[in-house]
Amino acid sequence: MSGENQQKRQIKLGAFLMETGHHIAAWRHPDAHASGGLDFAHYAELAQIAERAKFDAVFFADSVSVRDTNLPALSRTARADHFEPLTLLSALSVVTKHVGLIATVSTTFNEPYNLARKFASLDHLSGGRSGWNLVTSSTESEALNFSFERHPEHAIRYERAREFYDVVAGLWDSWEDDAFIRDKASGVYFDPDKLHVLGHAGKHFKVRGPLNVARSPQGWPVVVQAGASEAGRELAAQTAEVIFVAHQTLDEAQSFYRDVKGRLAKYGRAPDHLKIMPGIFPIIGRTQEEADAKFAALQDLIHPTVGLSLLSNMSGGVDLSQYPVDDPLPELPETNGGKSRQRLLFDLARRENLTIRDLYLRIAGARGHQQVVGTPQSIADQLQQWFEEEGADGFNIMSPWLPGGLTEFAELVVPELQRRGLFRTEYEGRTLRENLGLPRPANRYTDVAKQLPATFSFARSLA
Amino acid sequence: MSGENQQKRQIKLGAFLMETGHHIAAWRHPDAHASGGLDFAHYAELAQIAERAKFDAVFFADSVSVRDTNLPALSRTARADHFEPLTLLSALSVVTKHVGLIATVSTTFNEPYNLARKFASLDHLSGGRSGWNLVTSSTESEALNFSFERHPEHAIRYERAREFYDVVAGLWDSWEDDAFIRDKASGVYFDPDKLHVLGHAGKHFKVRGPLNVARSPQGWPVVVQAGASEAGRELAAQTAEVIFVAHQTLDEAQSFYRDVKGRLAKYGRAPDHLKIMPGIFPIIGRTQEEADAKFAALQDLIHPTVGLSLLSNMSGGVDLSQYPVDDPLPELPETNGGKSRQRLLFDLARRENLTIRDLYLRIAGARGHQQVVGTPQSIADQLQQWFEEEGADGFNIMSPWLPGGLTEFAELVVPELQRRGLFRTEYEGRTLRENLGLPRPANRYTDVAKQLPATFSFARSLA
Ligand SMILES: Cc1cc2nc3c(=O)[nH]c(=O)nc-3n(C[C@H](O)[C@H](O)[C@H](O)COP(=O)(O)O)c2cc1C
Ligand SMILES: Cc1cc2nc3c(=O)[nH]c(=O)nc-3n(C[C@H](O)[C@H](O)[C@H](O)COP(=O)(O)O)c2cc1C
Repeated sequence: MSGENQQKRQIKLGAFLMETGHHIAAWRHPDAHASGGLDFAHYAELAQIAERAKFDAVFFADSVSVRDTNLPALSRTARADHFEPLTLLSALSVVTKHVGLIATVSTTFNEPYNLARKFASLDHLSGGRSGWNLVTSSTESEALNFSFERHPEHAIRYERAREFYDVVAGLWDSWEDDAFIRDKASGVYFDPDKLHVLGHAGKHFKVRGPLNVARSPQGWPVVVQAGASEAGRELAAQTAEVIFVAHQTLDEAQSFYRDVKGRLAKYGRAPDHLKIMPGIFPIIGRTQEEADAKFAALQDLIHPTVGLSLLSNMSGGVDLSQYPVDDPLPELPETNGGKSRQRLLFDLARRENLTIRDLYLRIAGARGHQQVVGTPQSIADQLQQWFEEEGADGFNIMSPWLPGGLTEFAELVVPELQRRGLFRTEYEGRTLRENLGLPRPANRYTDVAKQLPATFSFARSLA
Repeated sequence: MSGENQQKRQIKLGAFLMETGHHIAAWRHPDAHASGGLDFAHYAELAQIAERAKFDAVFFADSVSVRDTNLPALSRTARADHFEPLTLLSALSVVTKHVGLIATVSTTFNEPYNLARKFASLDHLSGGRSGWNLVTSSTESEALNFSFERHPEHAIRYERAREFYDVVAGLWDSWEDDAFIRDKASGVYFDPDKLHVLGHAGKHFKVRGPLNVARSPQGWPVVVQAGASEAGRELAAQTAEVIFVAHQTLDEAQSFYRDVKGRLAKYGRAPDHLKIMPGIFPIIGRTQEEADAKFAALQDLIHPTVGLSLLSNMSGGVDLSQYPVDDPLPELPETNGGKSRQRLLFDLARRENLTIRDLYLRIAGARGHQQVVGTPQSIADQLQQWFEEEGADGFNIMSPWLPGGLTEFAELVVPELQRRGLFRTEYEGRTLRENLGLPRPANRYTDVAKQLPATFSFARSLA
């Protein structure tokens, strides 16, 4: 990497790896690895593609249930069988060297001691590459697997999440960085003065500590969030170092970016220490026609049962299964759920005279994320615009199908970004934090001034 | 492996991998890898040594706390910083092909949905090599990390464990073995008739299911237990497929073996479907003198602070730190805790005129497990006797220091057992279950009679 680029702000890239791909029919794509969801070799290949292309991280979403309310539709998608993300990432740490490893784990269905320990453990295993996507979970089907009668309220979930985070971060500081001496001659294994007992007693948790894992290479694994509500934004402003988010337009993205970055100052945080990374659903062709044709071919693979179920989910429960799918949308009474979304969809169909199939195809694709169908150049143009006009610090690449969609991004779009000086050609550091340009947190029990020059190696390159 | 051996009952071997070794001073051994507790390369080497020697499994104990009541002693042992076992085993699955991967996870501090998922995930990652050591946990320090005021009662812990197991096993049957079709042409990903909702509602848990992981290669990961109480034995008789246990004498071992195997019939289980594997702490020399000298050298590494703390732990709180360590044990009043253990120790010291140091050295070594200090031949003799005289189906090898202690067992004792036809020279099967000679459980929702010939491949070799 040139000295010039080292100074220049560059795009951060995450690879969102969802079984066989982000598109709802991805698994049916001729090149998709249909049984990839539980095939380690599949994920090893994906992580290695991402690493060769110098992605900052691979990212795994998660939910702790099968959403089986519409079984006929579910049985036609590849969403019900996949690895638990932390076991998978631990295994991936062995077949990669540089790429960050980010897993989603819910604060609603876990204990902070277990979570702090697993991410610290993964950080040691990977030499400082672990990241935690903190979510509060939003589906009832998950709560029913954890002895809840119903899903806990949004506000309670976020209150618990806030305290959960405090406990986890506190446990990560149980040991000072240089606590372990391991001197065979004297027989001193660690310095007892560098062990700290948390002694947390709050509303949701009582956790004594200390953690039974040494402070990890990153100090704290990188904390990621993906909540967009008011409570979610505020928690992110206080605690997150990366935000994953879904936007459809640059306007939306800019207003979110401004809002969240604006909240940092009151917590004494620099805007640069929180990276905002919207999702991108890219379909790449050498020409626009080729890209359009690729997208159309994927859309063709959506079975009507799956399309209707998507439509029903996104419109708050409208059931269209009794109508011919290639007839125009019939007149329908409004249902109870999600009225504004319903109105939007009905109006759209009426205005453009859409059939039921047309309508579900409209909402299939990226499902809330930015959909870019184009050439490497036109896609790079869009990323560059979002990045330079303060809509994003980087992007979460949601490949339509896997592995092919990721390979195309790595081989066609990444080089274009590199040519423009917008993306690294070599990893800057050894840890995920260093590559993202995030500070390594000093241990709360250590004299920060004394500690800084030794551990904040990132400080030199960012100064 | 010869056709003859295939019929013959053989010893099962587990490698108990504890950071730098089982001996309390192991980390100070000149050949020990002192910082091994958080070094993946260390564990990769150990797992590969075990696999080359055809061990059935590697095994990781666990506790979810640092036991810091005696900080000066703790700071001189390598017991406070280590990987979380499941993250570690997932990574080890990548660098091994045959050896089983058994991790301890407590039923007291976890949720069954998370646990069922992680072990199923590891089973998929490893091609059918995962095992769960179900423990209820016994230390107060752990409870205090999980919002408990004190450690839950023994009976309640076992009641919860029993129900926890039912939920986990039920979730492992969520999908029939052939539920996933993944037919790109028709668009059918799974057969909805082969998905089953558990709907568990009990005293401790309400868990709807289904699990979001396909049924794993072993059907169910192998269930291991290590509880020795009445409640522990009964739970094991109902549910365990392997028992780890600590015995000092063949008599003890035989009586435990008889007792537990005798409990199986009332649950309709064959004695052969539960393998009992006591711990062995082997110190191996080419001659008896060499072995004795090796043991003495290890014992010399025990710092008096550590020795006194061991003595205090094992005698219910006697504090001898104010007396000269090389003086004879002084006359002492009995303390409140563990009176019978105290009496035993005091009587022993009086009888043999032991110093305080002599006394703690007596109890250091194997700490409750069978200690064998000898030549490969004499050690093989002892293992053979326990195995043939119904004291054990196999052994859990607790190497005094690592990696050297395990290497010696693999290179010196294993070949001796193989020469005697007591241990395999090749893995019999692909999964941990197949190697242990355990049946693959049929899915409860499947027609068992129809299912048996296809999946019970073990049945052929054991018949
Ligand atoms: C890119 C992206 C990824 C997400 N991944 C997950 C996930 O894996 N699991 C989950 O439960 N929620 C996930 N979410 C949802 C949010 O994290 C959050 O739980 C949800 O939006 C509700 O919070 P909110 O009300 O603050 O928006 C994701 C959201 C986005 C934008
Ligand atoms: C070889 C062996 C290994 C054990 N490993 C663990 C362990 O890793 N974690 C744990 O909490 N208990 C462990 N135990 C303890 C028992 O599993 C059990 O929790 C304890 O003995 C209390 O149960 P009981 O009252 O039925 O004996 C182990 C015991 C033995 C013999």
